[in-house]
This record gives sequence, C-alpha cells and structure tokens, in this order.
Amino acid sequence: MPADALLFSNSRPPGADVPFAHAAEPLRAHLGDRTLWFAAWAGDDLDGYTRLVADALANVLGPVDVRGLHREPDPAATIRDADPDRETVFVGGGNTFRLRRRTGDNGVLAALRERDDLRYAGASAGSNLACPTIMTTNDMPIVGPGGLDAVGRIPVQINPHYLDPDPHSTHRGETREERIREFHQENAVAVVGLREGAWLLRRTRSEAEPDHRERDALTLDGHTARLFRRGHEPVELAAGTDLSWLLATPTS
Amino acid sequence: MPADALLFSNSRPPGADVPFAHAAEPLRAHLGDRTLWFAAWAGDDLDGYTRLVADALANVLGPVDVRGLHREPDPAATIRDADPDRETVFVGGGNTFRLRRRTGDNGVLAALRERDDLRYAGASAGSNLACPTIMTTNDMPIVGPGGLDAVGRIPVQINPHYLDPDPHSTHRGETREERIREFHQENAVAVVGLREGAWLLRRTRSEAEPDHRERDALTLDGHTARLFRRGHEPVELAAGTDLSWLLATPTS
Repeated sequence: MPADALLFSNSRPPGADVPFAHAAEPLRAHLGDRTLWFAAWAGDDLDGYTRLVADALANVLGPVDVRGLHREPDPAATIRDADPDRETVFVGGGNTFRLRRRTGDNGVLAALRERDDLRYAGASAGSNLACPTIMTTNDMPIVGPGGLDAVGRIPVQINPHYLDPDPHSTHRGETREERIREFHQENAVAVVGLREGAWLLRRTRSEAEPDHRERDALTLDGHTARLFRRGHEPVELAAGTDLSWLLATPTS
Repeated sequence: MPADALLFSNSRPPGADVPFAHAAEPLRAHLGDRTLWFAAWAGDDLDGYTRLVADALANVLGPVDVRGLHREPDPAATIRDADPDRETVFVGGGNTFRLRRRTGDNGVLAALRERDDLRYAGASAGSNLACPTIMTTNDMPIVGPGGLDAVGRIPVQINPHYLDPDPHSTHRGETREERIREFHQENAVAVVGLREGAWLLRRTRSEAEPDHRERDALTLDGHTARLFRRGHEPVELAAGTDLSWLLATPTS
C-alpha cells in the first residue's frame, strides 16, 4: 500500500519570499518528526541546495533533521533500508532531466519505486519524478535522462509552475496549455497543471480507518489548478478539490 | 563539405501574419528551383502541416515543388538518393522530441547525417534538429526521443523562440536565460538564442571562390539574438552579425 505523497508545484507562491511558508501545516503533518532524506540531484550545488532547504524547513517548521542523500556512501541502500515510521524522502526541484539521469544512474529511482511505503515529498522536478513519467516537465533536456519513466507514486501527471496564457503576448511559441495538448496527442494520462503555491496530497488510509469505501484520497490544496484530460475540455479546480476519482481512472 | 543550412527561429516574427514573409529573399536564394522535401514529423497532422507549409511558401515565393517526405514509401531512401542540385530538405516545427523519435525510428535522421551535401532548411524544432543535439529545445518531452543527439549541421546550439525575461513576472519558474545557464552547467557548446524572426545561415564557399582564408560563414539575420557561452556573460547580437568564428570554436 503506497504511503502518502505531498507534491508541491514549487516552494513559493507568487509574491511570497519565504519558501514553504504557505505550506507549514501539510508539511508538519506529512513529515512528523521523521528524519528527512533530501534528494538534491536536480540542482547543481548539492551541498548548498541541501543547506538552503534545511534552513527553509527549519524556519517554517522548527527543528527538522534534514540530511543530504548525496552525502551517503550508497544513497540507494539508504532508501532501501529506511524505516517508514522514522524516515522520509524529499526530492527537490531544479532540472528534471538531470534528476532523472542521476537517480537512474545511482539506483535511487529504483529504490524509490521499491519502497513505496516511504512517505514522499517533492517540489517542482521532485513532483515530476513522483508521476508515472517526467513527460510533463517544463525543463530543458540539458542531459540525456536515461528514460522518461519515473517513480509513479500517483497515477496522474503534474505540470508544475503551471502558467496561464498571457493575452498580451506576441510570442509565437507554444503556451503551456498547447504543450499539454501535444502531450495528449501522444499519451492518455491526465495532467494536473499546478499553479505556483498549489500542491497535491495523496493520502492512503489504513485498513483500520472506518471508511472502507474510500481508502485512497487525492486532494488539491494551496492554490488553484487546471485539469487536462484527453478528449475533454480543460477544467478549473479550486483549492480543496477532492480528486480521488483520478486515482481510479489513471488513463482518463 | 557540408551544404548550406538556413535555420529559422520560427516561421513568423511577432506581429506578422504571413509565414516566412520576412524571409523571402534568403529562402529564394537557398531553395533555388529545387524540389523541397518537407519533413512534417514534429507535427501531429502530417498531411495538413505539409499543405500549410506548401501554401505559405507558394504565397511568398511563387511556385515551389513541396513534397511530404512522410508520403514516401521509404523516406530515408529518398534522402539518401536525393540530388543536391535538384532537391533539398525542409524540417518543420512542432515538438522536437516527437521529431527526434520519428526520424530516429524511420532512418531519416541517419540519412540526413550521411547526406550533409544536401541543403537543409529548418524552423523551430527543425532548427533544433540541425544542431549537435536537441538539448536546447523548449518543448515538452511528450515521447521518448530515443536519444538527444541530432544532425549536427552547425557546431552550435540554437534556442528558438528566444524569450527575454519579463521584468513584471512573478512566476517562479526558470527564465529562458536560466535554462540555458543550466545547459552550460552540463555542456560546453555555445547557444544562440534566436529571437522570433531571426535565422542563422551557414554558407559553405566552394573551392572555386576566391577568398580562401574564409571558406565557411555563419551569419545571423532577420532579427537579433543573444549568444551564450560557458564561462562568459551573454552578449547581444544585431541582425547581420558575422558569427563565422563560432564554426571554428565548437565548444567555446
């Protein structure tokens, strides 16, 4: 039974200066007092990025035990051996192709797939990695990713930093919506365009919980989003929308 | 000795309605009265896209013999057997990952590498394909590309539809310039950010031409561009700038 996943569009909504200040409550609930293994591989300066995130989380949540997974002698083994009640993983943003390449090469991608009982948090590229594939990233393919398949902690695709078309633009390049339509020319999986400040929370209820009809829940929060399904017009989603039905219809 | 390549950012500058109207002169000089094999694979509707481009070129240039390469029984053989004095290739825009995948699968990519004596024209994704790799595309990886290596008709990377940072934006995603900086964290090849309406022309002078010191020429025209080199501050390039020095310093 997959553990909970908390997937952010990015660390800061527009206009906010303090990373994750908008999301203290879900972060606290999700992390508890677990040790957080931070996966910085989407970035360039791994130590610097880990410190930045550790400081940001400490600032918002108080003391958190954040450790850079890249500092471990065998990061994949660290994930494989993690205790789900005491440890959790947070995959940071940056370049999704670089993240996919490095985690594919060092075995962390495979370990994360195996250990779906570990809670997962991600932001931006880290949220892309939690999807079935990284095909809805906005990033430039600066390295060969070694494959586009990802961890698959949710059965839908996230497009982070979702941007609405600018009505004043004279730019001839594709809008984000046009890019997602192109994705649906080739793929059937639903795409949630998460505006900055938004997140998806996938919660798996334990067998002990009373409501047996509805074991898995997927919720949008923090900000609005736009839902794209193949063969349907896109729809706007308000913060707080229950998207659990998407868990049962992975290719709708 | 590689033949000339005419590589457009895209088919229309901002504010212009008629595709390629801004580039009638270089197109006429480049195509002559050759048959033009149009490679539509970056698009979705291959027949429709080929018609669109045939109409656009006819509108600007008068009669041109445009043929859809996808309609050939063996498109790679058509390229391999082409007569450089009578035939040329034009690779259209759309999704660069799809273009790379399809031309890799059908052998056209390999044929284009072999036949570097054929004149090459490209727009947007078609210009990306003319570079050493497709790593500086703006497109979403909607399909596995089967590799990022490309045709290599020029030794520099093009970023088409180059966009300047919007000073009023509150968006937290990377600017285009930041994405190209990320590319240079991983790669040494120079990148020309071609603003819409701009093109690069690579001309190879024949041995018979008098000026022996300067056989190959690379020129920016149509609009401005921004040049990014690893370890250097980006520089602005005016239309008409001679970039031939970049041909000799592929990794500068």
